[in-house]
Amino acid sequence: MTEGELLRWLRRRDPRLERRLRNDAAVLPLDRIDPADIATGGMAVTVDHQIEGVHFLPGLDPDRVARRLLAVNLSDLAAMGATPRYALLALAAPAAFDHQAFFRGLLAACRHFDIELVGGDLARADRLHTSLTAFGSPPAGGRFLPRSSARPGDHLWLGGAVGLAAAGLSLLRLGARWEDGTLHLPEACPQRGALATIARRAILRHLEPRPQLALGHWLGRQSRAAALDISDGLALDLARLCDESGVGAQVDGDNLPGGDALAALCQAMGWETTHLQLEGGEDYALLFALPPAIQPPEAFQCHRLGTLTADPRRTWTVQGRSQPLRRSGWDHLS
Amino acid sequence: MTEGELLRWLRRRDPRLERRLRNDAAVLPLDRIDPADIATGGMAVTVDHQIEGVHFLPGLDPDRVARRLLAVNLSDLAAMGATPRYALLALAAPAAFDHQAFFRGLLAACRHFDIELVGGDLARADRLHTSLTAFGSPPAGGRFLPRSSARPGDHLWLGGAVGLAAAGLSLLRLGARWEDGTLHLPEACPQRGALATIARRAILRHLEPRPQLALGHWLGRQSRAAALDISDGLALDLARLCDESGVGAQVDGDNLPGGDALAALCQAMGWETTHLQLEGGEDYALLFALPPAIQPPEAFQCHRLGTLTADPRRTWTVQGRSQPLRRSGWDHLS
Repeated sequence: MTEGELLRWLRRRDPRLERRLRNDAAVLPLDRIDPADIATGGMAVTVDHQIEGVHFLPGLDPDRVARRLLAVNLSDLAAMGATPRYALLALAAPAAFDHQAFFRGLLAACRHFDIELVGGDLARADRLHTSLTAFGSPPAGGRFLPRSSARPGDHLWLGGAVGLAAAGLSLLRLGARWEDGTLHLPEACPQRGALATIARRAILRHLEPRPQLALGHWLGRQSRAAALDISDGLALDLARLCDESGVGAQVDGDNLPGGDALAALCQAMGWETTHLQLEGGEDYALLFALPPAIQPPEAFQCHRLGTLTADPRRTWTVQGRSQPLRRSGWDHLS
Repeated sequence: MTEGELLRWLRRRDPRLERRLRNDAAVLPLDRIDPADIATGGMAVTVDHQIEGVHFLPGLDPDRVARRLLAVNLSDLAAMGATPRYALLALAAPAAFDHQAFFRGLLAACRHFDIELVGGDLARADRLHTSLTAFGSPPAGGRFLPRSSARPGDHLWLGGAVGLAAAGLSLLRLGARWEDGTLHLPEACPQRGALATIARRAILRHLEPRPQLALGHWLGRQSRAAALDISDGLALDLARLCDESGVGAQVDGDNLPGGDALAALCQAMGWETTHLQLEGGEDYALLFALPPAIQPPEAFQCHRLGTLTADPRRTWTVQGRSQPLRRSGWDHLS
């Protein structure tokens, strides 16, 4: 059973889950808040794992693990337009794990993003298993961003590059490593020049996702916006946005942001650029839909990907040739 | 570094953590709620692991793992006097894990305790790792129960038996197992009669902790009460209550609830009863302090353990002989 199948089975079993599992974070109606006012009054809450050997390669610095754990959760809050408020940690680690290095990194990152660690649970385990629950309040003067509010005719936007993080993970798998603060690229990779620069940037993009909180806040203040963060690949996450909103999409594949640099690295490494861009995942850029009259400010460096359509098909066009965009990407159970 | 040392280090690093890490659950001030009114207006939130081979023996039914995971978290909410509201799940499991059996058990337990599963994250892992974040609102007509509100002269109470769950875990380690719905006791244990009945009850107590939510609610409606749940052993958890309230305790060890039956089983098995009662842990009974004028209703079957004192020492008296109660019990990192 894949993750997608399991989620569909769960939604059928419980009508409340059907409502809750639609977005990057659940929105909780709280005491003293009008249940009709969830969009502006409740609390967004999300949980994400970081597990050694699953979400990151063994041997990663405890400090980096902590910062990555917070960042992937904050990315879910960003996709809701939420303001980070509180975090709870579940940390299970081997005896030799440097808990203090981990917590130094986590607390520094919490300060940076103005989120408060309020509790947690510690345990021993054979491998490092972490998960974090993050809470966010609605954006000031705005509302949370449901995936379901996109409409045909909306413009489809991307808040950052796709594919780079997946390239970074591939480089780490090939043996990229830190030693004494220096990042050593794998032997199979160019060691100097523009390609080495791109390679280093890709590795950092994988290790240090950047939650697009300011962009999420801006989206939450618009008249209408739908958003999610790209964690499992552009193709799969776009399918989720379309499914929830009941729309299709025409995507322009010629001109994805960062594509030229990534393509150069892919050529040198023998990788397929499009595969990394569509199915690589862990980009943690926001994918969002806006009415055509609204454009995100230049400062966010967003990129228009295409248009949403009443026709439910998702089409990918590169150099004038269109093809169906397959619903494929990372499934955590398959 | 033990868990206790790590927590003290963390509290020193961040004054906000110093405030947050004092109770079974963190209490979050939420939007639109007067920060001075946290006791009655915020949300209690807690997270606890259940990891295969750490918190339960390998091979436990997915259904039982799910129910145990919910129960240990609800016990923390009970210790706060909170009403369960929402749960988030982090589930990492091997490929062969029966996710549906797990979720059937979890959803049934959520219905039983009237708590709503609102989200989660799934991942693959070598061993079954689960954690759950649980949210509770303040008790109707009452307030949350801080560990810090006990005073000298208060009576110290216990909401249930101690030691039985630890005996159950020992029996499971000796080979107790289910087959076709029947619980088989290990060879070293009496197979019939009163001792076998106690042994079965001990195993069930370990596998199915009973969160004392109704008792917690009642405590939350009293003029003053301090409480926590016994997860790491009576001795260690009593020390935590005393530390937070700045008091000592005189504990009557002659007459702990369920002690006779447990003592009989311990005698047959060659175990030390007092060790299981004081340091066994995972009892999930509430340990609480009340002004002497207040007695818990008979229906809760609580047991008076002793008296809290201005003298910070904790003394354990059995058959007229007193000794210091050592601060020992389960430490998750040592």
